[in-house]
Amino acid sequence: MDSCTAGCYAVIFTSVRDAAEGDGYAEAADHMVELARQQPGFLGVESARGADGFGITVSYWESEEAIRAWKQHAEHAATREQGRARWYTTCTTRVARVERAYGWQRP
Amino acid sequence: MDSCTAGCYAVIFTSVRDAAEGDGYAEAADHMVELARQQPGFLGVESARGADGFGITVSYWESEEAIRAWKQHAEHAATREQGRARWYTTCTTRVARVERAYGWQRP
Repeated sequence: MDSCTAGCYAVIFTSVRDAAEGDGYAEAADHMVELARQQPGFLGVESARGADGFGITVSYWESEEAIRAWKQHAEHAATREQGRARWYTTCTTRVARVERAYGWQRP
Repeated sequence: MDSCTAGCYAVIFTSVRDAAEGDGYAEAADHMVELARQQPGFLGVESARGADGFGITVSYWESEEAIRAWKQHAEHAATREQGRARWYTTCTTRVARVERAYGWQRP
């Protein structure tokens, strides 16, 4: 995810998941990523979850406006409600403006 | 990690780890967290890594100055070099200013 280096926005979503296979979570999460990709201003998403159930997802957006539109997306809102009711015990969302980025890759 | 809600900074560090047990990584990572906790302006840290080796660590800081000081900390710099040589195949760091935060916890 190299397309957000400065002036773009990161939405940092941390959550604790009630681990239970076959509860529809994986399908819903994949579908949300697909749907996010289709939104105007979407730049990318990265996700990691450890065996302890704690996960971090960072999505990247061109503007605050794009973030707001995605938040208001009806299907996204409905899935968030499911998340609250069924999949997560704790969630935090932070919206942050990216100031700079750097990195490297082993050749 | 509720102490960074607005006006503070998030350092989003993503990495791909060359999985190998007993290479000193876990000890070094724990030690870096201990050391970070002692730095002025440190607000917290959250970390998740999946079985695929992709990980996200977000640390939270009061100011850009605090982030710079931690970056320049000699032991931190030496451990970063080890990370590059031994533990990671890809790393990206983003510094972002937190605009707002919200969340909930299941009662």
